[in-house]
Amino acid sequence: MPDKNTLAHLQTVTESLESGATLQTRYLLNGALPAQDVASLLESSPPKERKLLWELIEDKNQGEVLQYLNEDIRLQFLENMSTQRVVAVSEHFESDDLADLLQHLPDKVVSEVLLSMPPQDRLRVEALLSYSEDSAGGLMNTDTITIRPNITLDRVFRYLRQYKKIPDMTDNLLVVSRSNRLLGTLPLAKLLICDTKTTVRDIMETDHTAIHSDTSVSEVAQVFEKMDLVSAPVIDRSTGKLLGRITIDDVVDVIRDEAEHSMLSMAGLDDDEDTFSPIMKTTRRRAVWLGINLITAFIASYVIGLFQHTLNQVVALAVLMPIVASMGGIAGSQVLTLVIRGIALDQIGSANMRWLLNRELIVGLLNGLLWSTVIAILTAVWFDNIKIAYIIAGATIINLLIAALTGTLLPIFLKKLGIDPALAASVILTTVTDVVGFLAFLGLATIFLV
Amino acid sequence: MPDKNTLAHLQTVTESLESGATLQTRYLLNGALPAQDVASLLESSPPKERKLLWELIEDKNQGEVLQYLNEDIRLQFLENMSTQRVVAVSEHFESDDLADLLQHLPDKVVSEVLLSMPPQDRLRVEALLSYSEDSAGGLMNTDTITIRPNITLDRVFRYLRQYKKIPDMTDNLLVVSRSNRLLGTLPLAKLLICDTKTTVRDIMETDHTAIHSDTSVSEVAQVFEKMDLVSAPVIDRSTGKLLGRITIDDVVDVIRDEAEHSMLSMAGLDDDEDTFSPIMKTTRRRAVWLGINLITAFIASYVIGLFQHTLNQVVALAVLMPIVASMGGIAGSQVLTLVIRGIALDQIGSANMRWLLNRELIVGLLNGLLWSTVIAILTAVWFDNIKIAYIIAGATIINLLIAALTGTLLPIFLKKLGIDPALAASVILTTVTDVVGFLAFLGLATIFLV
Repeated sequence: MPDKNTLAHLQTVTESLESGATLQTRYLLNGALPAQDVASLLESSPPKERKLLWELIEDKNQGEVLQYLNEDIRLQFLENMSTQRVVAVSEHFESDDLADLLQHLPDKVVSEVLLSMPPQDRLRVEALLSYSEDSAGGLMNTDTITIRPNITLDRVFRYLRQYKKIPDMTDNLLVVSRSNRLLGTLPLAKLLICDTKTTVRDIMETDHTAIHSDTSVSEVAQVFEKMDLVSAPVIDRSTGKLLGRITIDDVVDVIRDEAEHSMLSMAGLDDDEDTFSPIMKTTRRRAVWLGINLITAFIASYVIGLFQHTLNQVVALAVLMPIVASMGGIAGSQVLTLVIRGIALDQIGSANMRWLLNRELIVGLLNGLLWSTVIAILTAVWFDNIKIAYIIAGATIINLLIAALTGTLLPIFLKKLGIDPALAASVILTTVTDVVGFLAFLGLATIFLV
Repeated sequence: MPDKNTLAHLQTVTESLESGATLQTRYLLNGALPAQDVASLLESSPPKERKLLWELIEDKNQGEVLQYLNEDIRLQFLENMSTQRVVAVSEHFESDDLADLLQHLPDKVVSEVLLSMPPQDRLRVEALLSYSEDSAGGLMNTDTITIRPNITLDRVFRYLRQYKKIPDMTDNLLVVSRSNRLLGTLPLAKLLICDTKTTVRDIMETDHTAIHSDTSVSEVAQVFEKMDLVSAPVIDRSTGKLLGRITIDDVVDVIRDEAEHSMLSMAGLDDDEDTFSPIMKTTRRRAVWLGINLITAFIASYVIGLFQHTLNQVVALAVLMPIVASMGGIAGSQVLTLVIRGIALDQIGSANMRWLLNRELIVGLLNGLLWSTVIAILTAVWFDNIKIAYIIAGATIINLLIAALTGTLLPIFLKKLGIDPALAASVILTTVTDVVGFLAFLGLATIFLV
């Protein structure tokens, strides 16, 4: 059983480094720990330590570790390697991972790597490079085992024994025609229990799940989750020819990335954001988001500025106004989060959108009535002014309704425009709930109070 | 290839229902669509339609659909069933799913279901019920294929052919001793390529990944992701005896749940939150979060209230004060999101925490210097007052530093206390950045301006 605790390793390695026990660290990094653990260790290290640890890994082991690193960090290391070294480590990668990798490297390096490969492998990787990274084609691997329908299982067994190694995650043999069209699949589990004299055609499954090469990775993930697949063949949409197969380990990465994407984007963070990015890189990335938010904040201030006269007369308004804006912001972000997840899971469409909007408006109204009563009572007691209490209650209800409306429709609308709702919706929502909050509260006060 | 588009089905079904074409809907729900699609359809339907659709599914098909529904909705249906019906549908479940299910049902129903089962299955489910849902034991299934080390592969083949069906996701046969201790694994891929006269012991793998039954599901997910596993045996920590196995389909659910958990919790939403929950349920759940936020909002207002005298003299302060609070809130939530993800991925520990805090403080300072300059210039121009410009700049820098400090340390601290950082940290952070924002800005103004 592998020791799973990266943090414990990290502690050991950090202490060894600090005390100058390089030998022990070198031992841990070069064989004592599995490559997956070394990769996690690098991912959990600050930039300087990361570089130091990387240099302690022997050349012959670097390729395997690279394979398990996240893309951002992997690229950083590769960019600093000589073309020769890149060629050397590229031998460790499966064709799909290699294609992903090459897409981010300079053309010169790519052609060197391709030239260094055996012709058949090169053709394979070149074919993979032609697919978009976000499509099934970009996710697939080409290491399939194919068989013909008219042979007996006995021959299949003999054929398999000629293989030195069956590719990882092979749960099906793929049955193809002479022209490489996919005809069906033969699950290993079936192969093992059937009589060896039957032919492949007799027992192959034809209601298998085949994926078109231009399907989006997010749809691929949905199919894998829904059908509980370990692997699925990828075919060309028009010809039906077998192109490769997708395995669950790559799909798991898609699922994690997608689920994290919403959370990170809503805070204006990049998907590839490495927890231990260096200072300047982090500062630059964060600065953009703060700048966008500053525009929002100044718009809200501008609205408040319109009511300076009112504020001058009743200072209690300045004290209370953040409450209205904040309640709207919270209510809105709850709706927004739910709808963004619903969109990501492909649950929300025109058939149920009206119901959803309706529910959110009613929930907003009910919670508005509940909490505006509480706010009104507290305000009346605090400022001994019943009029302000009515005004803040009215403004809160208005803002919660607008929050429900914006939180539901905005992400759906952005999605239709082809804009990522997780990224853009939260800033726009905050602007709306701030502006409406201040406008409703100070506006009502100007009409009824001053 | 299954039609993956739930929304298109939903549109068809909704139209059929509205036009009264029950026959067509009934046809779609009972066989024309795979059970997985019917389940998605139910999940994407508002409560009333959901109930209607459910009633159109024939009794004999309900069990299979239930299997694919999310837990929240599945329970709703089960709670409304007679014990007799629950017993009938429970036949469709695998032992691990059934155990999960039973944990949420009334004791009376549980014992009826258990009594209805064949003794061997009952013992199996009862054993599973003894494990916590959040442990490997609660996630595992008991459908393992075990073999002895001293037999030849030829005998393994003969043994397998006696099976009518090899369990889904079987990629390994498990090699056990006479007393059921796990000795090693025999990958099907190896079984297929080796000479049939060799014995299991000769080729079995002993560096396999076995999981202890008390390991947390989140650690299980990490092991599966790191080692690219399809299935893994579960053993008892003290005796080493084989208890069952965990398969990747269940782990994928854990991974999605965990990744979504952070996002939903940060908005105060429940993990089981069904997108189409009925109005009153949704209102109640949301009300709690709004109430907690209201306390935060009143604390911020109280702080502003301390400076009523100052606000009365310089109304521009009321106009500008939300900017300082908002910049702190945004900067803080960026740090918070990153750290919460880092904690979830087990990347952050005492060895790298100091570096992280350091970086966040420097990033906060740099962005503080940048944006406070911009804010100062805009303020000076707007209000023609250089003193306010200095004051807001100073307050912004202070608030960004406090935001960095709180965003980094708060989730780590909450985690140590055993409190879920995703749930509690965002409210506390907002309180801190609001209070510090208003306090710094209005405090500095009181000292230097009035």
